[in-house]
Amino acid sequence: MIKTPVRGMRDLTPSQMILRDYILHLITEEATLAGYQKIETPAMEPLENLTSKEGGENESLIFKVLKRGQSLVSAQEKGEELADSGLRYDLTVPLARYFVNNQKDLPLPFKSLQIGSVWRADRPQKGRFRQFLQCDMDILGEGSVLAEIDTITTTAKILTRIFREAKIEDLTIHLNDRRILTAAVAYAGFEEGDCGSVLISLDKNDKIGFAGVKDDLLQSGYEAEKVEKFISLFEQAAEGIDVRAFCGMLGDSAPDGGVIRDLEKISSVASSSLGSTGKIVFDPTLVRGMGYYTGPIFECTAGGFSSSVAGGGRYDKMIGKISGGNNVPACGFSIGFERIVAILEDAQFRPSEAVVRRAILVDKKLVSEKLEEVLKRADELRAIGEIVSVVTMSRNLKYQIETMEKNGYTAFEKVYSD
Amino acid sequence: MIKTPVRGMRDLTPSQMILRDYILHLITEEATLAGYQKIETPAMEPLENLTSKEGGENESLIFKVLKRGQSLVSAQEKGEELADSGLRYDLTVPLARYFVNNQKDLPLPFKSLQIGSVWRADRPQKGRFRQFLQCDMDILGEGSVLAEIDTITTTAKILTRIFREAKIEDLTIHLNDRRILTAAVAYAGFEEGDCGSVLISLDKNDKIGFAGVKDDLLQSGYEAEKVEKFISLFEQAAEGIDVRAFCGMLGDSAPDGGVIRDLEKISSVASSSLGSTGKIVFDPTLVRGMGYYTGPIFECTAGGFSSSVAGGGRYDKMIGKISGGNNVPACGFSIGFERIVAILEDAQFRPSEAVVRRAILVDKKLVSEKLEEVLKRADELRAIGEIVSVVTMSRNLKYQIETMEKNGYTAFEKVYSD
Repeated sequence: MIKTPVRGMRDLTPSQMILRDYILHLITEEATLAGYQKIETPAMEPLENLTSKEGGENESLIFKVLKRGQSLVSAQEKGEELADSGLRYDLTVPLARYFVNNQKDLPLPFKSLQIGSVWRADRPQKGRFRQFLQCDMDILGEGSVLAEIDTITTTAKILTRIFREAKIEDLTIHLNDRRILTAAVAYAGFEEGDCGSVLISLDKNDKIGFAGVKDDLLQSGYEAEKVEKFISLFEQAAEGIDVRAFCGMLGDSAPDGGVIRDLEKISSVASSSLGSTGKIVFDPTLVRGMGYYTGPIFECTAGGFSSSVAGGGRYDKMIGKISGGNNVPACGFSIGFERIVAILEDAQFRPSEAVVRRAILVDKKLVSEKLEEVLKRADELRAIGEIVSVVTMSRNLKYQIETMEKNGYTAFEKVYSD
Repeated sequence: MIKTPVRGMRDLTPSQMILRDYILHLITEEATLAGYQKIETPAMEPLENLTSKEGGENESLIFKVLKRGQSLVSAQEKGEELADSGLRYDLTVPLARYFVNNQKDLPLPFKSLQIGSVWRADRPQKGRFRQFLQCDMDILGEGSVLAEIDTITTTAKILTRIFREAKIEDLTIHLNDRRILTAAVAYAGFEEGDCGSVLISLDKNDKIGFAGVKDDLLQSGYEAEKVEKFISLFEQAAEGIDVRAFCGMLGDSAPDGGVIRDLEKISSVASSSLGSTGKIVFDPTLVRGMGYYTGPIFECTAGGFSSSVAGGGRYDKMIGKISGGNNVPACGFSIGFERIVAILEDAQFRPSEAVVRRAILVDKKLVSEKLEEVLKRADELRAIGEIVSVVTMSRNLKYQIETMEKNGYTAFEKVYSD
């Protein structure tokens, strides 16, 4: 037998599970109160759905599931594709399929909460696993900024609760809009078709700074004049610039007033709802990787960590594109579950367990009547909230108690046969 | 895009998720109080672990995951196995691997709670899916009957709580022992090597009756005399026979006194612990399919349904066999999660939601200030436990409210812009 998990995957220990369940409980509780409804889709999706080009580079990381029986034999003989399904690499593609498949039974707007594993054959490295959990809140069928406000405020509430006990502060929502980025690219004189590539460079800003982005663009062969104009735009946009001032710098290329008013409304209403628990800032350098976003985009940072703990935005064209049907307005915020687990583990945070975890160690020879008494007392202790485990005393009692202590046991008692 | 899930798999709706989460919550709460600790292993296991012959016929139902990149090319060229991992078909094989991999950090005995999906490429049929959830409680390293008593009483408590509200009664634990079955086979004069095949026939008893089992054995070519002796043994064992009386009928073939005393102890102590919530009966016809059981075996039935809602037993040799190392005493009870969901759905049971699920339908043109007020009030209602969803009113308000009602909304209010 191979003792270790499949490459890049991991076993989760009881103490890891306690932390994960604690976070999941807070997410589920807050999202449910805000009207999100949990759904679940299978781990496997038809391969066609996973290769619709909406998944970006994740599509090259798919774990494919082998056809079976006669289909496999026939595929091998004919040199055809050996797989017709694969493990999902995110929860967005399955959500689109779910929505189209179940639309007639769903309320509109539909507020979905999905918590589930996804699989990516990424190069394994510290903190990055080939199976990991995603937590997505999405609102489908809500075209107004209420969708952005709702996903942002609910996410902020969840993160505030998660981080409060761990004393991680400075929750900040970074807000931008794909249409403003497109306008900035046009303002600098780039071709429309270069937009994707230029934004990929800008997205590296938090790692390599503006000077790095500039080098990157020049190395990609863009004219120095355009690059200069593009970079200086963001350099001028000192911290704290508001969306109206930034768009004012874009002259004729500026997006229409509706875009600005939408962002202002998101910002002011969400700020008011968050109160003192977090702040919202306009961040013209925020890009978000996925190509499917069509409007406002947002990320959340906390505790001075550079990488974000949640990210999302509006993607109004994706469901229509994947389903081949009508467009459906859509907006989602995905909580970086594994990132948050890592932050809390690094901070050595443990959810406060108010309860006693007690081991009652009994002699192997205990007669039935005495064992019945012990079990009865164990039940009484459980009724007042103690975790109680009745186990047989081992020959090496000292070692047994030590390993139980390491596993969270706080109280011990021994019962011997007469 | 393909709109439907992969063949034999399914999408779970919000109301299905509420029922499932309700059951999972009760399982987790009771098992945790009894000292079981949650662990999790990856969905994928090395193919070698899944084909160790301990999985019985499930090993022919494995979804294999295709090798990637150069390994796949090379495997195809050389005509080698195209997969080196697969989706797990149960939680027992992964538990054995987990235990061997993490043994140094685990308390002994280790009481494990696993809740996770498994995959089997079974022929899809009503109520049987290719991805389904399993809930297993196992105690590893506990050689005494305390393991049986603990898994039985904890399972009975969980099932009592699940079924109580749905008014499903008559919780019965059926108890037998593999060593008694082996003794009965020997008593009738069958060869030792025929034990597996004879027991497979006996296992059909609840579907085809003793007459059917008899035909089955005769058709398999066993001598009429042996078959007669075997069947009459179980026919004589009228309902309510106790283990000592049954073993008394086996003469020289009877198992040693320790087996009988163990079953008596399990029966009396667990009965005392269950009190009036369920009963334990000795059932000499109980077989349990899996070949790996070595001692006591048990199943749970309820509400007059013929098929069981939980099953388990002792399997002391499996971990040693899989790991190639030392044997580790092991005993588990697996709750038939999907079976219980089906029973509760058939009974049209819904977990009582004490809360109001309210929709505040707002006019699309609502100005920021007014929207802020609405959100503030929504938060106040959530603080007193209401589920509140603020959504934009759609043009077809009547239809919108209808679909929300179908999805569990109980209260509606409308907010118009002035």
